Amino acid sequence: MSAWRLVEGPAPEPGATAEAATGTSGPARPERPRTGARRMLVIAAVMLLTLVGAGGLAAAGTGMFAEKPDGCGKPDRSIQLYAVELPKDGTQIRIGYGLTPQTASYPGPLMEMMEGECLAITLHNQVSAETLAALRTDPNHPLGVSLHVHGVKYTQQSDGTVQSGSYVPPGGSRTYTWYAQPRNNKTGAQGTAGYWWYHDHVVGGPHGTQGLSAGLFGGLVVRRPGDPKPDRTYTVVFGDRQSINLRRGTATDTCTEVNPQPGPSCLVARKGERVEFVVVGIGNDMHTFHLHGHSWADTRTGVISNNGQPFVDSIPIIDNKTLGPGDSFGVQVVAGDAVGPGHWMLHCHMQFHSDAGMSTMLHVLDENGNMPPGMDHQHAAAGAAPASATDSGQHQHQ
Amino acid sequence: MSAWRLVEGPAPEPGATAEAATGTSGPARPERPRTGARRMLVIAAVMLLTLVGAGGLAAAGTGMFAEKPDGCGKPDRSIQLYAVELPKDGTQIRIGYGLTPQTASYPGPLMEMMEGECLAITLHNQVSAETLAALRTDPNHPLGVSLHVHGVKYTQQSDGTVQSGSYVPPGGSRTYTWYAQPRNNKTGAQGTAGYWWYHDHVVGGPHGTQGLSAGLFGGLVVRRPGDPKPDRTYTVVFGDRQSINLRRGTATDTCTEVNPQPGPSCLVARKGERVEFVVVGIGNDMHTFHLHGHSWADTRTGVISNNGQPFVDSIPIIDNKTLGPGDSFGVQVVAGDAVGPGHWMLHCHMQFHSDAGMSTMLHVLDENGNMPPGMDHQHAAAGAAPASATDSGQHQHQ
Amino acid sequence: MSAWRLVEGPAPEPGATAEAATGTSGPARPERPRTGARRMLVIAAVMLLTLVGAGGLAAAGTGMFAEKPDGCGKPDRSIQLYAVELPKDGTQIRIGYGLTPQTASYPGPLMEMMEGECLAITLHNQVSAETLAALRTDPNHPLGVSLHVHGVKYTQQSDGTVQSGSYVPPGGSRTYTWYAQPRNNKTGAQGTAGYWWYHDHVVGGPHGTQGLSAGLFGGLVVRRPGDPKPDRTYTVVFGDRQSINLRRGTATDTCTEVNPQPGPSCLVARKGERVEFVVVGIGNDMHTFHLHGHSWADTRTGVISNNGQPFVDSIPIIDNKTLGPGDSFGVQVVAGDAVGPGHWMLHCHMQFHSDAGMSTMLHVLDENGNMPPGMDHQHAAAGAAPASATDSGQHQHQ
Repeated sequence: MSAWRLVEGPAPEPGATAEAATGTSGPARPERPRTGARRMLVIAAVMLLTLVGAGGLAAAGTGMFAEKPDGCGKPDRSIQLYAVELPKDGTQIRIGYGLTPQTASYPGPLMEMMEGECLAITLHNQVSAETLAALRTDPNHPLGVSLHVHGVKYTQQSDGTVQSGSYVPPGGSRTYTWYAQPRNNKTGAQGTAGYWWYHDHVVGGPHGTQGLSAGLFGGLVVRRPGDPKPDRTYTVVFGDRQSINLRRGTATDTCTEVNPQPGPSCLVARKGERVEFVVVGIGNDMHTFHLHGHSWADTRTGVISNNGQPFVDSIPIIDNKTLGPGDSFGVQVVAGDAVGPGHWMLHCHMQFHSDAGMSTMLHVLDENGNMPPGMDHQHAAAGAAPASATDSGQHQHQ
Repeated sequence: MSAWRLVEGPAPEPGATAEAATGTSGPARPERPRTGARRMLVIAAVMLLTLVGAGGLAAAGTGMFAEKPDGCGKPDRSIQLYAVELPKDGTQIRIGYGLTPQTASYPGPLMEMMEGECLAITLHNQVSAETLAALRTDPNHPLGVSLHVHGVKYTQQSDGTVQSGSYVPPGGSRTYTWYAQPRNNKTGAQGTAGYWWYHDHVVGGPHGTQGLSAGLFGGLVVRRPGDPKPDRTYTVVFGDRQSINLRRGTATDTCTEVNPQPGPSCLVARKGERVEFVVVGIGNDMHTFHLHGHSWADTRTGVISNNGQPFVDSIPIIDNKTLGPGDSFGVQVVAGDAVGPGHWMLHCHMQFHSDAGMSTMLHVLDENGNMPPGMDHQHAAAGAAPASATDSGQHQHQ
Repeated sequence: MSAWRLVEGPAPEPGATAEAATGTSGPARPERPRTGARRMLVIAAVMLLTLVGAGGLAAAGTGMFAEKPDGCGKPDRSIQLYAVELPKDGTQIRIGYGLTPQTASYPGPLMEMMEGECLAITLHNQVSAETLAALRTDPNHPLGVSLHVHGVKYTQQSDGTVQSGSYVPPGGSRTYTWYAQPRNNKTGAQGTAGYWWYHDHVVGGPHGTQGLSAGLFGGLVVRRPGDPKPDRTYTVVFGDRQSINLRRGTATDTCTEVNPQPGPSCLVARKGERVEFVVVGIGNDMHTFHLHGHSWADTRTGVISNNGQPFVDSIPIIDNKTLGPGDSFGVQVVAGDAVGPGHWMLHCHMQFHSDAGMSTMLHVLDENGNMPPGMDHQHAAAGAAPASATDSGQHQHQ
């Protein structure tokens, strides 16, 4: 049985490689067997969890892979994060991340990093084994919560997956290390500045599908020096069942007429404020993010940065963007610019989604925080569709 | 009951804000209560239309919000637009926009603006209350037609939505003001040049779903000085039921062998002509726009503009682009460049969509307007799929 | 009956044109009838194949259209390609392209071209009429296999479609000519460098739906001088039934612990190697391509090329990208950069797709080709989902 070998230098596509191996004609480069036999360790247990359940992968948590990514020495910052069960939304189990157990919410807290920063996050799993068991269909699937992140760098130890063992059993805790690797002209590293998100990857199954649908997700923004700074940021997660932040219909817009509290279901701003949306897709469905009266650049930051130089002319300006599950992007708009105050619809443009209640408002007030006179009447519900979701966690109704 | 207040300066994500409000620890910036109590007027009546039906939002049309966007003084141009019922397509009600009642069509007329221009469009609703009533399921939903536009600037008065009251009852008319806000290096305004579209937002329900499916949509191109000028432009709308411009199968290509009339179901060009497509997605489904033999740049204009400078090298050239409902983009190709004349397929690359008849042709003739000899036979239908759509409005069969 | 005529110079949108034609008011430019009557030959037989079956389109193969695209004189290179039936995958018929009959596979061999190159590919159809007949539902549909390509230039003779007659009956062969047209500052040609794909367009029906689902597709990379060179390239095709390269669950990852063979179902690399993925969408469904621990630039090449100049700052870096059928793009990552070796998941982020087995691994070994100690145990299956697909063709199990 021969061992691991890889050809030296650029290798053609597998098809051609195999072709060379079988001795047939073709343009494939020759495959030079390497002297040293090497072993490849295959752990592709995406879903077959017998070994995991039996502790076979416990070793994965014991240091065979580096704990921190290259370039990340001592973390620049350490924070605590709690996974907490929240009141049910109808029959739906809800779980949120919070910087404290009391403030867990869905989406979870916005994380912000600067490129170059190294962040240590200790996740405490306060969700009961009973709840986690209720969310799995396979009795062999392990019970735990994890933290998987997009965009920034992390080792297998911080992957948040079952097969790497990087999750947290009920009552336990685990530290995940994220590195916002900066650009490097020398090495060609392309940087990690961007609009990302984090989420569970183990609740219920090997892809965390049940953790996601319960509320275990949040936004992450990695900024680069010189990036435009928003006055306020909202995380807007488009998901299954025609939901915005897991809410639908009237539940998407719980702003009260008096003393509204900005939050996952209350988007407000004053004219002239730079409002930033971290837009994330979860679940199974495609969606499109559309905002009335405002548009943005389809770039890394949502704006066309010129820094005194002429604008790049080829970049599309858009007001509707398709996103699939796992996608995330940033939208920055100057609230009410040119268009003035008003109740500006923010909705999925798939017609049956918006009709079913996947629609909310960005309420833009004037520079003084007032809505122009004439619409001063009772709070009208945001949708006739049944609001199967309820607010939870930090957001308080008045 | 406290009143509206927003923190000064950059505010963290709602999660952190609420956390600060509840007095828990965390990195949130302190929230400074503002002195003046302010009221926020919440009108989020996306679907709860009782108030609207009762005239509660009549005030919305009476000027509490600015009529025209900032920067738009006297309109540079005024046009009339008519919403007109067209002959049914099978059992489907069809309604089109037209610059005259006689020329209403679907898609409606292409609108073209230059960045910086301010356009006043007076919409005349000639659709009967009976027809509009037939398109709604909720008897409390108001009867009307509207004009909602993407990309350019407009105030709440021109939003074309129910909750802003900016729609037109049967027999009425209303002027909408669009402002193609230009770029401004000083203010950071990013410009509105782009490929957009306009559509009804009130027929049948609060998102105009029934208006859209009946035909109330059209393309809008906003150009910037120096942009490439096409020789001909086609609006191509990909929608539900595997439709191109609401047509399917044989109905998508009604070009006649002799004297074909360019139109929504007849795409023709001569070799060397610059053909521009305004591609729009409507309805509920995802689609992909694919054209045989031609490709384009994934930029604002569909081309890589160099203006004597080196090409930007990072921009993808594509020949297939995914679009969701609400998305719009521009494709510019030089007809037959390198590839010559021919019947070049234009179709959705979702296999069951194209198989079901979501496929038409760009007929490219030679420079003299002739098709090369050898294919001169009878007109073959564009598809075996039932052509449930028929042409209507302006497009005449020969 | 008047003949073909097109207005001179820029023409407005069909709507406006027709409007002018009917004599109504409007801004449409006048339509100047051309003196010479011309005939347009309409062959839009997307699905109505009676004529085709009867040989009515035989003429299409007889040279009325140019054989080679403009700019492509003598082909720079000629290769042979074989369409071959492979062992069934359960009850699914499998057909692959191969540079030899013995090495046919799905995906087919990666094609690589340099911009400026002209390639002649002679396709030999070794698939039996019986098999092809089994794949069609319409008895009038012709039996054949074809080669349709994205991105590069070709004439109607190389379109690979039914209505152009450019397909290959069982036992026959046909030469297709592809031209990787280069950029040209003078003519404005935008170039054809990019990540493309090729596929059948006639098996089973006029869009090759059955050919595609049987395996008749492959990747094409067109490079431009100066483009980054990968150390290894994998074609990754996301398709229906939650498949990666038509495989699902355990079948997506057949890497063996000892002597794994890189191939369509075994993605391996050593830390530091530049790995290139040619990502293609086929079928009917939307998908998203997600890779753990790695990210790439959303550009033509998947990297931000700086060539000693400052990076372009506006380009998004992403680790998840939505793709629809027909889409293709390139991803380049430095394996394990910053994150180290490990079993890095590569999956569709649509939760029910990944849960159903649309998930595999990029196995990153250390610089010496070893996996770090601690995970050296038995091969664990890549998924609990039934692996309805099996490997075929060139890829050998150990």
